[in-house]
Amino acid sequence: MPKKIKLGILGGGGDSLIGVLHRVAAHINDNYEIVGAVFNADFEESLEFAKEIDVPTNRIYKDFETLVEEELKLPKDERIQVCSILTPNFLHFPMAKKLLQNGFHVICEKPMTTTYDEAKILQDTLMKAGTVFAVTHTYTGYPMVRQMREMIKEGALGKIYKVDAQYYQGWINTIIHDKEKRSSVWRLDPEKAGISSCMGDIGVHAFNMIEFTTGLQIKSLLCDFNYLYKDNQMDVDGTVLIRMDEHVKGVIRASQVATGEENGLAIAIYGEKGAFRWEQEKPNFLYKLSDTEPLQVYKPGHAYNSELSLDGTKLPPGHPEGIFDAMANIYLGAARAIRGERYNDGEFPTMLDGVRGLNFIESTVASHKQGNVWIDLD
Amino acid sequence: MPKKIKLGILGGGGDSLIGVLHRVAAHINDNYEIVGAVFNADFEESLEFAKEIDVPTNRIYKDFETLVEEELKLPKDERIQVCSILTPNFLHFPMAKKLLQNGFHVICEKPMTTTYDEAKILQDTLMKAGTVFAVTHTYTGYPMVRQMREMIKEGALGKIYKVDAQYYQGWINTIIHDKEKRSSVWRLDPEKAGISSCMGDIGVHAFNMIEFTTGLQIKSLLCDFNYLYKDNQMDVDGTVLIRMDEHVKGVIRASQVATGEENGLAIAIYGEKGAFRWEQEKPNFLYKLSDTEPLQVYKPGHAYNSELSLDGTKLPPGHPEGIFDAMANIYLGAARAIRGERYNDGEFPTMLDGVRGLNFIESTVASHKQGNVWIDLD
Amino acid sequence: MPKKIKLGILGGGGDSLIGVLHRVAAHINDNYEIVGAVFNADFEESLEFAKEIDVPTNRIYKDFETLVEEELKLPKDERIQVCSILTPNFLHFPMAKKLLQNGFHVICEKPMTTTYDEAKILQDTLMKAGTVFAVTHTYTGYPMVRQMREMIKEGALGKIYKVDAQYYQGWINTIIHDKEKRSSVWRLDPEKAGISSCMGDIGVHAFNMIEFTTGLQIKSLLCDFNYLYKDNQMDVDGTVLIRMDEHVKGVIRASQVATGEENGLAIAIYGEKGAFRWEQEKPNFLYKLSDTEPLQVYKPGHAYNSELSLDGTKLPPGHPEGIFDAMANIYLGAARAIRGERYNDGEFPTMLDGVRGLNFIESTVASHKQGNVWIDLD
Amino acid sequence: MPKKIKLGILGGGGDSLIGVLHRVAAHINDNYEIVGAVFNADFEESLEFAKEIDVPTNRIYKDFETLVEEELKLPKDERIQVCSILTPNFLHFPMAKKLLQNGFHVICEKPMTTTYDEAKILQDTLMKAGTVFAVTHTYTGYPMVRQMREMIKEGALGKIYKVDAQYYQGWINTIIHDKEKRSSVWRLDPEKAGISSCMGDIGVHAFNMIEFTTGLQIKSLLCDFNYLYKDNQMDVDGTVLIRMDEHVKGVIRASQVATGEENGLAIAIYGEKGAFRWEQEKPNFLYKLSDTEPLQVYKPGHAYNSELSLDGTKLPPGHPEGIFDAMANIYLGAARAIRGERYNDGEFPTMLDGVRGLNFIESTVASHKQGNVWIDLD
Repeated sequence: MPKKIKLGILGGGGDSLIGVLHRVAAHINDNYEIVGAVFNADFEESLEFAKEIDVPTNRIYKDFETLVEEELKLPKDERIQVCSILTPNFLHFPMAKKLLQNGFHVICEKPMTTTYDEAKILQDTLMKAGTVFAVTHTYTGYPMVRQMREMIKEGALGKIYKVDAQYYQGWINTIIHDKEKRSSVWRLDPEKAGISSCMGDIGVHAFNMIEFTTGLQIKSLLCDFNYLYKDNQMDVDGTVLIRMDEHVKGVIRASQVATGEENGLAIAIYGEKGAFRWEQEKPNFLYKLSDTEPLQVYKPGHAYNSELSLDGTKLPPGHPEGIFDAMANIYLGAARAIRGERYNDGEFPTMLDGVRGLNFIESTVASHKQGNVWIDLD
Repeated sequence: MPKKIKLGILGGGGDSLIGVLHRVAAHINDNYEIVGAVFNADFEESLEFAKEIDVPTNRIYKDFETLVEEELKLPKDERIQVCSILTPNFLHFPMAKKLLQNGFHVICEKPMTTTYDEAKILQDTLMKAGTVFAVTHTYTGYPMVRQMREMIKEGALGKIYKVDAQYYQGWINTIIHDKEKRSSVWRLDPEKAGISSCMGDIGVHAFNMIEFTTGLQIKSLLCDFNYLYKDNQMDVDGTVLIRMDEHVKGVIRASQVATGEENGLAIAIYGEKGAFRWEQEKPNFLYKLSDTEPLQVYKPGHAYNSELSLDGTKLPPGHPEGIFDAMANIYLGAARAIRGERYNDGEFPTMLDGVRGLNFIESTVASHKQGNVWIDLD
Repeated sequence: MPKKIKLGILGGGGDSLIGVLHRVAAHINDNYEIVGAVFNADFEESLEFAKEIDVPTNRIYKDFETLVEEELKLPKDERIQVCSILTPNFLHFPMAKKLLQNGFHVICEKPMTTTYDEAKILQDTLMKAGTVFAVTHTYTGYPMVRQMREMIKEGALGKIYKVDAQYYQGWINTIIHDKEKRSSVWRLDPEKAGISSCMGDIGVHAFNMIEFTTGLQIKSLLCDFNYLYKDNQMDVDGTVLIRMDEHVKGVIRASQVATGEENGLAIAIYGEKGAFRWEQEKPNFLYKLSDTEPLQVYKPGHAYNSELSLDGTKLPPGHPEGIFDAMANIYLGAARAIRGERYNDGEFPTMLDGVRGLNFIESTVASHKQGNVWIDLD
Repeated sequence: MPKKIKLGILGGGGDSLIGVLHRVAAHINDNYEIVGAVFNADFEESLEFAKEIDVPTNRIYKDFETLVEEELKLPKDERIQVCSILTPNFLHFPMAKKLLQNGFHVICEKPMTTTYDEAKILQDTLMKAGTVFAVTHTYTGYPMVRQMREMIKEGALGKIYKVDAQYYQGWINTIIHDKEKRSSVWRLDPEKAGISSCMGDIGVHAFNMIEFTTGLQIKSLLCDFNYLYKDNQMDVDGTVLIRMDEHVKGVIRASQVATGEENGLAIAIYGEKGAFRWEQEKPNFLYKLSDTEPLQVYKPGHAYNSELSLDGTKLPPGHPEGIFDAMANIYLGAARAIRGERYNDGEFPTMLDGVRGLNFIESTVASHKQGNVWIDLD
């Protein structure tokens, strides 16, 4: 296998959540190495952040233009191969366009651009560039979403008649019901946030999920938004009737005011021979429904899954992928201790836990062998 | 924040799952850098693997003794600070002991040693060494396990009267029911695998979980094993009655023949004022029971959680931590495309997905603004 | 408390499921006694069925008109007080009208009539009659649906902004995809089944559930049906955009082709201060969501529930109401044995089970008292 | 089918929950008619209660002995055929014995007797009597418990190796932690409540469930109780190690101090080819686990179920049996209205609901037919 791919990062500095997500993802399969970046519009902050996460500072650039210019001067085998664009939405288009024109591969956060026109221009640019361009519709990376797609492709549902996708969140409640806040936040300012809030931010994921899993294209739609207040210009809730065909229909439901919903992405696909249901908050369970057979629950890592699904699973069945994070938390605690930083009791298991464990194991064997008697631990 | 900690790896090469888990975990919070290793007993394989995952080969050593010797020659700020021990169980003790005696920090897979006597010796060694020693009881790293511990510590359950912990798996079924296999596999050979199979491998996690979350110590136990076949010498199933106190009791149930169970670790803790229940396969849901109030479900990332729990959450509520892996799968697909390797349709969203998304978003706005009419997508 | 109410039954003979449901419900609280009926259009079958279920045959009438005529001749304290109308839909209106005009109370299956015009006429008739008229929107009888309504009324959600109700079934799949069947079945013949299949049969329950629980009225709607085939004239699937107010919106989703869905009625109500979710297939769990607090799960029978909810619960918490049926199955098995009919092993626990139980209990006490030793059962 | 069976009731008067459960169950399949009773030790209260629930008072007897004596004087076809014994536990034995000796069938609440010796005597009595005797281990009546039994009998799990049954409740917490209460309540007085509290009341159900579903007999056991306080003489918690065979083992876990648990009966059965899991609080879901296939979820009423299971289902799939109670609640509300009693808004759907429903249905059709436009409701 070749060496790690040289990755540049645009945006995602400081506390940026999307920054964490991309960095972790880039490391997980040992495929990428961050070699350059413009983490922040402020050059000093960018450098500071690079030190924090131990990225060499010599290729932290003062702005995007400089990054492109300087990297092109480097010999090809040292140059950044691919850039991840994590900047505010309106910068996606100009950055992606310039990167493609200069032969870089691109991994771009969604929405890819702020308008459909820009999107089509980008598509033309890519045609000419012939490089790789990935949009991070993250949810298509779940093993069970991939399994759903592959089984549908192989005909598990027969002809599809109906789809129902939901993306419900409640987070904008803390803003929208306050007149002051809703008039000042950039998220609800069309100038800054683009044409749509709810549908542009999350509805589009539900849309993508439908087309990804079913292989069908949505041909037409009818939409009703809710702005909740007369003085608010951005949709915070919407329902979309969709048609794939005269007799193949469905609905996309999206909301940012669905109180108490966290990241409620869910999809149901109904076909002649069966149906699938999947929910993002319990991503390891894929439900296959039938009119005549018991419900089946597919889980990751089993030999019964498709190649595409298994390729996305790194651990045996029953280990939720979140176990990486559980282990990472223990490494984090140990790191603090090693550095002599303050850490709380409970951040990582100490040797005492190991000692107790052995005491336990030997006691169970003694109890059983002596005829199921009580044994005291030390 | 200081620079990354210099990490050495012992074992975990090739397809080792535990190797993947530790490397990913080490990267996730940008705290560690792998600088040296003995990935494999075979030096050539070790070197090969280092190239594969892009670890510099100059500090890949031919064996553990050489690693210690050579690293000690390096100046302190270049030297490996901490070693992760991922080797077969019987090597944990000698390696950990030597590392501690030479001033290294240690992160050690469980079981820490193969006997309680070794464990106590190691404890003495650590006393003198004064370094950091972590045992990877991974499950204590889950945000909701930490939340449980903290709430119990603050008195949420009042006095605890009963605990019930389970760790059920079914994987040994494929071996145990076959006379040939069960007599030849090292896992069921006491010489190679140690004193206990089921209790040593998984029961001990349940034990640790009880002591970690309740803060109580198990004082005595009574155990009954099942070997399933006369010719089998290792426990593959066992139930342990436990006592923390004359009137505080519980049970640990562990099995490797619980057919169809994958990684069924679960714990229930009952106290005077309430109870907690948690299951490893749905790690983001912590259930708080009460005799008089509605059941409450705690989830990660919320402000209502404790500091220890929040410290272990990297994303907002509703994003299962497995989302890192979903994103990582997309990065993996992109990496293959960038390298010009073979990849399957669906491994990452392409620009076409981005174009479709924008087409969708603009159509929803048009439909709504024109009075909820049908709009065709391109 | 007064004596049982005298109940007449129209329809519901033979294997009619709706007949079983109404009879069982009438008996459950010891409030009704069936004294007369026209179970079936065929008088002989009606008589036969009356004998089967042990209703006196002297007040089984040959048709509806005779029932009304003859009952009116009886003294008031012997006369049928209330009639349950379980006949085909088109008979609901004429029967209900005549019953009301003659001073009878009415319990009527839904849809109450086949047209809105009939419904308004019936409303006028009821005004004049001044009797009791109940429509069996069964789902409003669930304790947790009632709890949801009462808590909303008391302001638990604050102002409501969004509702989402679903009623998904898949049963019509066995008919709709077969050209022969779909052209011949009365369910899909507008002449016999009325104006709407999916929305008339199940969508209307979702509609009723919204108005019942929220106390809001739906003011306008926009609907899209799916007929699935050009030669089919009845909706088998539909999505309805609804508005309670300019800024209070929602959606009703109903389907009879949602493959594998059984009786998937579900409702979600989102308000300023919280939200509720409830699913008919797990009717004992009412979920209360919040943006800032842990999710709460309300269950029937607890003191924290409202009077209206508690009034509908007959057993302590944790006993699903279906336990009546479990017990009824045991009574059924015993009945067969008592009558000397054929019955299967397992239909009811025999004395042997009782004997074993006592053997078990005494052995547990002996084992504990003798210091946790093994005791053999007989 | 013959006429209803003549049923006598002993105990179960007034607010007795067990009385409600038995009466409802007796009515559900139209098989029984209550013709005589001693509802209460106090004759006046017995008569009063009979009037309340409309049982003829002429066969309400002043005590059990009189009931037997007088009924025997009646001609055989008028006489009580079967008696349900719902009295305090210590009366089960003498009543059952006398009834059997006089040729009556018996349906007896559990525990059947208070000692194993009594149980064996009763068994002898039954042998001679040759009548029917049912013990109400209610949980064996659930359709999915029956399905589990039948599938195991047919070999779905292969050889069984392990069982795990739990019955956790928390209700005794309100008594046990209060010194005053725990010393005065009859439930914790061995003189009145018998030899065991927790194991005798609920553990025995778990025991019965294991033997019922697996067809195996438990051969020996080892038990540990928890009394929680030195001054308490009755077990309120216990764990029982069980052996069906040298290599077939399991555990029964029972508790009345499992805080927040309501009626937590659950069972897991692991065999060579698969496993079953079932929980009483979600009785309609039977989980079939496999090491190699997707998890399957069986639900009642489907053609794939066994005869014994289908025999216990009265409604189509997706209707939880609790729907009888939802409907019963509506009948209850209507009964109150008919009698002119006070009732709350929401107790039953009125004609207004029916009118609204028709308005809704016609509007959906109009909206769709006019091209998906908005239609106002009245």
